[in-house]
Amino acid sequence: MGRKVRAKATATISNLNCGFDIFGLAIREPFDFVELEMTGSGVVEIAGIKGYDSLSHDPEKNVVGVALNAMISKSGTKAGFRAFIEKGITPGSGIGSSAASSAAAVTAANELLGRIFSLKELVTFAMEGERLASGAAHADNVAPAILGGITLIRSYEPLDIVSVHVPPELFCVVIHPEMEIKTSMAREILDKEITLANAVKQWGNVGGLTAGLFSEDYDLIGRSLIDHVAEPKRSALIPGFYELKKAAMQNGALGAGISGSGPSVFALCRGEKSAEAVLKSMSAYMNGQAIKFNAYLSPVNMEGATIC
Amino acid sequence: MGRKVRAKATATISNLNCGFDIFGLAIREPFDFVELEMTGSGVVEIAGIKGYDSLSHDPEKNVVGVALNAMISKSGTKAGFRAFIEKGITPGSGIGSSAASSAAAVTAANELLGRIFSLKELVTFAMEGERLASGAAHADNVAPAILGGITLIRSYEPLDIVSVHVPPELFCVVIHPEMEIKTSMAREILDKEITLANAVKQWGNVGGLTAGLFSEDYDLIGRSLIDHVAEPKRSALIPGFYELKKAAMQNGALGAGISGSGPSVFALCRGEKSAEAVLKSMSAYMNGQAIKFNAYLSPVNMEGATIC
Repeated sequence: MGRKVRAKATATISNLNCGFDIFGLAIREPFDFVELEMTGSGVVEIAGIKGYDSLSHDPEKNVVGVALNAMISKSGTKAGFRAFIEKGITPGSGIGSSAASSAAAVTAANELLGRIFSLKELVTFAMEGERLASGAAHADNVAPAILGGITLIRSYEPLDIVSVHVPPELFCVVIHPEMEIKTSMAREILDKEITLANAVKQWGNVGGLTAGLFSEDYDLIGRSLIDHVAEPKRSALIPGFYELKKAAMQNGALGAGISGSGPSVFALCRGEKSAEAVLKSMSAYMNGQAIKFNAYLSPVNMEGATIC
Repeated sequence: MGRKVRAKATATISNLNCGFDIFGLAIREPFDFVELEMTGSGVVEIAGIKGYDSLSHDPEKNVVGVALNAMISKSGTKAGFRAFIEKGITPGSGIGSSAASSAAAVTAANELLGRIFSLKELVTFAMEGERLASGAAHADNVAPAILGGITLIRSYEPLDIVSVHVPPELFCVVIHPEMEIKTSMAREILDKEITLANAVKQWGNVGGLTAGLFSEDYDLIGRSLIDHVAEPKRSALIPGFYELKKAAMQNGALGAGISGSGPSVFALCRGEKSAEAVLKSMSAYMNGQAIKFNAYLSPVNMEGATIC
């Protein structure tokens, strides 16, 4: 039997309102585990999946397989892996479910390979998993899932990942209504062109959010959590989105919006107490609806993916 | 004879490549002076203009008159002003000529009125001058001209001006070819819609530039000084733009681009020595051209508009 390593990677909130396709933030829960057993086969075998029934065991149709195969082909070794996936994050929830599995897998594999790859290289392998999951090799979930904290994808060509300062009192609330939105579909409903006027508003807020994070100006963070691009379109896919957002804002959230392509709705808060009040009010709204939901309260996960 | 106060406001570089309509940076020279004599007339008189011949003495057609009239109407007083303008900045140069005059005027007037207005209010008055000059009440030059440093206009409605951290080694080079580009014309050639893909690239760089400034990461600042929106269009209005940019980049500039709507071309550099080399190479290029030019080297002006 080969050596085994298990890694954990957490859910992530991407976009953060204004930062469509560029911002991502790691939370502490929910999370996935991936355990890998090293083999000399040169291939990946998906040996087990716990916690979610519908994921493929075909390594070419599973993000773990795709991410690990990308890694093997760059490793110059004949390493192979048997993977046991334990899903704590529901696929299609908008909080980086595929990214967490890919991130945990490449983190465990890198440990088994003697840490031959940098964290940035791990991101590029995990991005291949994202290409399978959503049709585009996005990094806005895999980067924070691997690195932790809040990350900014400044550029894709070349890939340039920037870690943004995280103010210590920042807390996150996530409401996950149990319905699935396909990322590919959520992308299709977006306009391919936007007005220059709206683009200027959006990048004003990107600058404001970045400045607010670095200067620990919570009010500025809140004022910048506005989305002129995706939310006006995607909110239609999430029943009760504006009521949920209102419940968050009326109870002291700095801002609230769609996590990734939804359906999860997140709120950022200053301090745990505020986050508890926001969680309570958002949950109270959901309790009156027909849709089951999960609720999470978490500080920012500063650690990223870890061996465990 | 009424009390007299003289104020100085400097040139400003707006946009900074990626931050179209949101970023502005104050340099130390060139600059304008505006001297005001307080009267009880309730009106503005443009009593003298030095340094440039073609500006109107009609207070409704001169940015100083327009900015001061906006201020008087909000002051609740019968104050009036006789204004003497001393232009050090050539109108139409793309380094905030109108903004500097407006900024100096409202700064002097506020001093005469007993500083009844906040700096942010002064920006709103000076913006009325910008409306006259360019057809739109932009703040990206008047905000840094009044506040100094590097400013971010997060939002116009409501007006939200954020001061961004300025790394101490940042130096600016400006080459001003002696030709005029009307801001209104430079705006008209821009597309009213941009692709979402280009918008994402642009706000990735806005986030990167903001992060680079706060973290004093000069390389990141440099990597973020890219413009996917205005430069591809406006560069056609500036003969030799790409050669000038190349001269800057090949001699160590962090980045270079069009200042405001041009024709001035700016470069940001790390350290005065680097700025001197960049100034020399850009000037050498211009010396081989038929167009006369002015060249400026300056640290960031952290003071803003001042009484002098």
